[in-house]
Amino acid sequence: MADVNVTIESMLMALIEGKKYRTLKDVLVTMNPADIALVLEEFDEESVTLIFRLLPKDQAAETFVEMESDMQEVLIKGFSDHELREVLEEIYVDDAVDLIEEMPANVVKRILAQADPQMRKEINEILRYPEDSAGSIMTTEYISLRPDMTVAEAITKIRKTAVNRETIYTCYVTDHRKLLGSISLKDLLLVSNDDTLIEEIMEPNVISVNTLDDSEEVSQKLARYNFLALPVVDQEDRMVGIVTFDDALDVIQEGATEDIEIMGGMTPSEKSYIRSNSFDLFKQRIPWLMLLMVSATFTGMIINGFESALAAQVVLTAFIPMLMDTGGNSGSQSSVTIIRAISLGELDFSDLPSVIWKEIKTAVMCGVVLACACFVKILLVDRMLLGNESVTIMVAAVVCVTLALTVLMAKVVGCTLPMCAKKLGFDPAVMASPFITTMVDAMSLLVFFGIASALLF
Amino acid sequence: MADVNVTIESMLMALIEGKKYRTLKDVLVTMNPADIALVLEEFDEESVTLIFRLLPKDQAAETFVEMESDMQEVLIKGFSDHELREVLEEIYVDDAVDLIEEMPANVVKRILAQADPQMRKEINEILRYPEDSAGSIMTTEYISLRPDMTVAEAITKIRKTAVNRETIYTCYVTDHRKLLGSISLKDLLLVSNDDTLIEEIMEPNVISVNTLDDSEEVSQKLARYNFLALPVVDQEDRMVGIVTFDDALDVIQEGATEDIEIMGGMTPSEKSYIRSNSFDLFKQRIPWLMLLMVSATFTGMIINGFESALAAQVVLTAFIPMLMDTGGNSGSQSSVTIIRAISLGELDFSDLPSVIWKEIKTAVMCGVVLACACFVKILLVDRMLLGNESVTIMVAAVVCVTLALTVLMAKVVGCTLPMCAKKLGFDPAVMASPFITTMVDAMSLLVFFGIASALLF
Repeated sequence: MADVNVTIESMLMALIEGKKYRTLKDVLVTMNPADIALVLEEFDEESVTLIFRLLPKDQAAETFVEMESDMQEVLIKGFSDHELREVLEEIYVDDAVDLIEEMPANVVKRILAQADPQMRKEINEILRYPEDSAGSIMTTEYISLRPDMTVAEAITKIRKTAVNRETIYTCYVTDHRKLLGSISLKDLLLVSNDDTLIEEIMEPNVISVNTLDDSEEVSQKLARYNFLALPVVDQEDRMVGIVTFDDALDVIQEGATEDIEIMGGMTPSEKSYIRSNSFDLFKQRIPWLMLLMVSATFTGMIINGFESALAAQVVLTAFIPMLMDTGGNSGSQSSVTIIRAISLGELDFSDLPSVIWKEIKTAVMCGVVLACACFVKILLVDRMLLGNESVTIMVAAVVCVTLALTVLMAKVVGCTLPMCAKKLGFDPAVMASPFITTMVDAMSLLVFFGIASALLF
Repeated sequence: MADVNVTIESMLMALIEGKKYRTLKDVLVTMNPADIALVLEEFDEESVTLIFRLLPKDQAAETFVEMESDMQEVLIKGFSDHELREVLEEIYVDDAVDLIEEMPANVVKRILAQADPQMRKEINEILRYPEDSAGSIMTTEYISLRPDMTVAEAITKIRKTAVNRETIYTCYVTDHRKLLGSISLKDLLLVSNDDTLIEEIMEPNVISVNTLDDSEEVSQKLARYNFLALPVVDQEDRMVGIVTFDDALDVIQEGATEDIEIMGGMTPSEKSYIRSNSFDLFKQRIPWLMLLMVSATFTGMIINGFESALAAQVVLTAFIPMLMDTGGNSGSQSSVTIIRAISLGELDFSDLPSVIWKEIKTAVMCGVVLACACFVKILLVDRMLLGNESVTIMVAAVVCVTLALTVLMAKVVGCTLPMCAKKLGFDPAVMASPFITTMVDAMSLLVFFGIASALLF
C-alpha cells in the first residue's frame, strides 16, 4: 500500500473508537476524496458509513466516485432514498454510468429510480454504447455555445451552467447539435471586446471522435493533441458528449496494465494486485500456464523424434536451454516493441513489409554478433576451460549457425504475429512472449537437429 | 504510421511542387500542430523550412514544440536571429527547456542568447534540477493570486496575464511565495459576489510535490487525483512551478513504454519504433541477448554435469523445454504483475512478506493443478497415444513433482527480485522475464536432475 495512509488510517480509527466525531470531521475535510476512498478500504462497513455521513455533501459524492465498486454497493445498500438522491445529484453522468455498470440489477433499479429524469435519460443513452467505445466513457455534461452569441453572453452562460458541467475549460459551438467549432475559456477571457461574436473567434477545425470509436484509441488521440477534452459525435454527426482528460488517463493506464498482463501471459483483470486474492491470481494465470504446458508437447515430440541421435551426441542437449532462451528473448524483444507501437497508434497493418524488413536487418546483426561470440565462448569456456572434449569445432559450428537462424526466425515471427493479430481483430498483446516462445522453441529445435543430423551424424 | 497523414502528405507535397503557397497556407491553418509536425517528418529540410515560414506565428511555435529534436535542430540552424526570437517568445518555458536538453552546445548558446532575460533566468533555474525530477518537467508559468485579492481583482489579473501562462484553470494562492491554497477558475467564476476575498473561497489543503520528487511518481499522483496541474515547491517550501497534466501524461506514457521495453529484455530508448533504424534496434537489443546467452552457460554446465545420467535416460531430455518454459512463464507472470504494481505506486518494500505469501498460495494452486494435468497428459499422450514405452509412471512422477516445485520457485523469485531491486534503488523492470527465466531455468534443472537421480538411477 502506498505510504500516504499508513498513519492517517490509525488516527482515524482512534477517533472513531473514541467517538470524537467533531475532530474526525475536521480532519476529513482537509483530505482529498481520492485519499479518503483509499483509506476507507481498510475500514469495516459500519465505520465507512459513519465517516461517509460526516463528510460534506460534495466531498462525500467525490469520495463515493473514487471508491471500489464493492464498497459503493455496501454504502448504497445502507443509504436512505434521500441520501442516494443527494449523492446522485452531485456526481457527473459518466461517473453514474461507471457505477451502474458495476452494480447488481436490484441496486441499478434503485439508482435509476432516484436519479432525476434528465440524468436517467442520459444514463440510459450512454449505457446503449458498446463497452470500450468512446460513447461508453463520454459524459454528456459539456458547455455548448451558439455561434451568434457574443463573448459576454457566452461568459454569462458559462457562469450560469458551470456547476453542472464536468469541464468548462473547452466549450463547443453547435448549431442544431451540429459541431461547428470549439473555443477554450482561456481564449474567451483573452478577448477584450465583449461584443465579439463566438463564430469570429472559435476554432472551426475541431478534431472529434465518433461514439463507436475504440476508447483506447480515442484516449491516445487526446493525449497526442494534449487536449483537455475531445468532442464525441454520433453517426449523424451530431455532438452527443465529450471525453475528458481524466477518463482518458484512466483508460490509458488500464490499457498499459492490460497489455503488460497479457504480454506476461495472464488474463487481464480490472482488480489491482493489492485487491486480488490468491484465487483471483490463480484464475488469471492458470489458463495460460496450462495452454503453454500442453503446447510444449510439440517440443517434447521433436526431441523424442531425435532421441537416438541425441543419445549418440548427448553434448548437444547442453545447448538446448541456451538456444531456446535466446530464441524466446529475441522473439519477445520484437513482439513487445511492436505491440507497444501498435498500442500507441504508431503502426498499422500497412507497415508490415517495412517492419519485417527492419526486423530482418536487426536480426542479422544480432544473430551474427551473437553467433560469433557464442563460437568463441564455446571453444574457450566449454572446450578449453571446462575441458569438455566432446565439444568439437563442428558441434560449436552447428550450435552457432542454429543460434543465428533462431534469432532470425524469432524476430520475424515476433513482429509478424502481433500485426496479423491486430489485422484479424484480436488483441496484439496475446501474441507476446509466452506464445511466441513456444513457437520459436519448436522451430529452433527442428533447425538444430536438422543441421546436426546433416553435419554430425 | 497512423493513417491520419497518408493522403495529407502527398497533397502537401503536390502543393509545394506546384508552388501553390497560398493554398498551402490555407490548408495548413486548418491543421492541428501535432499533425503538422507528424507530417513534416516525411519532408526534406527545404520543404520543412518553407512550410514552417508559411504558418502563422503561434501555430508555427506550437508545431515546432511537437517536432522531433533532429528536425528542430535543422530548423533552428536555418532561422535568422529574429525568427528564433519569435519562436521563443511563443513557447512555454518548460518546452524551451525540453528543447535545450536535446540540442548541441552551440545551438543552446544561440537559443539562450535570443531568449529574453526573464525566460533565460527561468530556463537556467529549471536546468539545474536533476533529470527525471519534478523540477525538470515543471513550468514556471502559472497564475498566482494573493489571499487578500477580491474575486473581481483575481479575474482581472487572470485575464491580463493569461496569454503567458500555460494553464489558467487552476490558480495558486501565495504569500511571499509560500503556497497557501489553490482555486480553480471554475469555482472563481461560480462566485456571485465579486467582492469575496480569495482566502475565503480557496482550498487551503493543497497537495503539492517537491522539486526533487521523481517525475514519474509525481505524474502518477496527478493522475490519481485527476488534477489539471500539481504545484511544485522547493526545499524551503516556496512555490516554484507547476507540473501540468499534458506533461504528466507524456511521462506516464514514456514510463509505461520504458517498463515494457525493459521487461522485454531491451535497453529503453526514447526514439519511437518508426524513427529507430535497425542499428538503433540492434544496440538496444544486443546487450541483453549477449548477457543472457552467456548466462545460459550455467544451464549448459548443469546438463553436462548430469550427462551420463541423461545418456541412460534420454527420455528426460524431452521434458526439459516444457519445464523451462513453464518456469519462465510462471516467473514472468509474477514479476510482470509486481513491476506494474510498483510503477503504479500500489506496492512498496514493506509489502514484501504479504506479497510473498500471496504468491506462494497462488503458486501452490497453479503448481498442483498443472502437475496433475501434466501427469494425466504424459500418461495419456506420451505413453499411450504416442506409445513411448520409456515414459514410465516414475518418469511422469519426477517430471510433475519438478513442475510443481519449479512453479513455486519461479513465483517466489519472480515477486521477490523486483521488490528488492526497487529497495536497492534499481529499476524493478530490469528484474523481469529474461533475467528471471535464466535463474529459474538453472533452478528447475537442478531440481529435475536431483529428483531424477534420487528416484530413477
